[in-house]
Amino acid sequence: MKFLRIGTAGAERPAVMDGDTAFDLSGVTRDIDGAFLADRGVERTREQLDEGRLRPIAVAGLRIGAPVARPGKVVCIGLNYRDHAAETATAVPAEPVVFMKASNTVVGPDDTVLIPRGSAKTDYEVELAVVIGRTARYLDSPADSAAHIAGYTLADDVTERAYQHERGGQWDKGKSCETFNPLGPYLVTPDEVGDPGDLELRLWVNGELRQDGHTKNMVFGAHHVVWYLSQFMVLEPGDVINTGTPAGVAFGANDFPYLVKGDVVTIESPRLGRQRHAFGQA
Amino acid sequence: MKFLRIGTAGAERPAVMDGDTAFDLSGVTRDIDGAFLADRGVERTREQLDEGRLRPIAVAGLRIGAPVARPGKVVCIGLNYRDHAAETATAVPAEPVVFMKASNTVVGPDDTVLIPRGSAKTDYEVELAVVIGRTARYLDSPADSAAHIAGYTLADDVTERAYQHERGGQWDKGKSCETFNPLGPYLVTPDEVGDPGDLELRLWVNGELRQDGHTKNMVFGAHHVVWYLSQFMVLEPGDVINTGTPAGVAFGANDFPYLVKGDVVTIESPRLGRQRHAFGQA
Repeated sequence: MKFLRIGTAGAERPAVMDGDTAFDLSGVTRDIDGAFLADRGVERTREQLDEGRLRPIAVAGLRIGAPVARPGKVVCIGLNYRDHAAETATAVPAEPVVFMKASNTVVGPDDTVLIPRGSAKTDYEVELAVVIGRTARYLDSPADSAAHIAGYTLADDVTERAYQHERGGQWDKGKSCETFNPLGPYLVTPDEVGDPGDLELRLWVNGELRQDGHTKNMVFGAHHVVWYLSQFMVLEPGDVINTGTPAGVAFGANDFPYLVKGDVVTIESPRLGRQRHAFGQA
Repeated sequence: MKFLRIGTAGAERPAVMDGDTAFDLSGVTRDIDGAFLADRGVERTREQLDEGRLRPIAVAGLRIGAPVARPGKVVCIGLNYRDHAAETATAVPAEPVVFMKASNTVVGPDDTVLIPRGSAKTDYEVELAVVIGRTARYLDSPADSAAHIAGYTLADDVTERAYQHERGGQWDKGKSCETFNPLGPYLVTPDEVGDPGDLELRLWVNGELRQDGHTKNMVFGAHHVVWYLSQFMVLEPGDVINTGTPAGVAFGANDFPYLVKGDVVTIESPRLGRQRHAFGQA
């Protein structure tokens, strides 16, 4: 199944795709959020689908929101691809590097992203994002992570590099700007994703391929990351984890240009879907 | 006025103190949260008090919760006291150092704080916390901050120093552990706080005075911090800002011992109230 939220920002309607057909979930839940996921929402949706109780709806042409409403937190893993660590001339970390984004950065996959005032180094980062489905606290091992993951989605972990690296040393300042986390289009359940370590991740700027990555190059895989984070914080249903970006960012060795107003970023992963967002000016 | 939330965790009842008398706010709002603050909650409470419409309630002996429910984010300022920068042998920063805590770290002022598994360096940090009352985005100057602040409260910005400094370089990992942000007891409105740059902040461990600070030693005052943060992120009603800690932490030059199970931390500021929380083991 692929969960999604359709309609205008702040008034999205919950829906689910089964194969190529979208079904209305309004009768099952008011929204797709932590409470829905905690309350067996995925399982209840499966039951409703199997019993033929959901009504098909047309979604073509409608705005798609982030696939989970109001995440309690957005946790990010830095330098988590061998090719990205290499392009930024950084050692592969011995354990996950953890930072956070303000959760009100989350917007829909195709919404306009705003370049912050005064920014000259706004950068893109395609990432595999994990959505937590069940409270995770001191998990015993990475093998326990699967039971705590509701599904996966795509994120653009938009970053202002000068704010990240040149304004005091802690990264969050360059990660939390308004609209800096396009998420979606779908929350894809693990059975449809398959191995999270076998996913292609691609990103284009104005049609030019910039990131051509693969999650096989992750230093710490999705299950390891969930287990690891649960030793340092309590992960809750609806929380989002951006698991790191592969090579090809503007900050890297290729010296690709930073983003400017009017640029269009496209992101794709075969089993996760596609984002397309234009950049405006805050 | 002093807003507070009383009762068992997750089922707190909203209340307000006017002078020494507590009044029930259940008829005005379901909870004290971002939505209440955004919807003129402070002003509406003042009107209800002035019109004698609120019913006094007894609060003695009841648990006090954090004074604001479910903050959207907890933003922290690092090295923001001249005396604390000196004790950690760090230069006074040229601009605010910004990091974040997971917002589910927030607990009541007197709740048990859990020392994380594997921790040997759990530390305390008394802080003045700002609660945002109105959305702040690209404020023009620090003079605009006052209109966006709902009030002030106390925080213990509990920190695991090894996780903060020895596990990858980004601080959030040592800041986001379960129960790591006792907050309260009150959200005190700015008229009762007076000058946020004229507040004593004291912290005792097992009755021994460890931090004896004063907000006059802040590098960047509360109004400056709100203005500054609004250039990098959108602050929303209910968001909490921990504005930094004065000298006297265990990590500092005094070599005070780190916290262990059974320790009791007391925090006080004359116009903000008092916290007393014991430490347990996660």
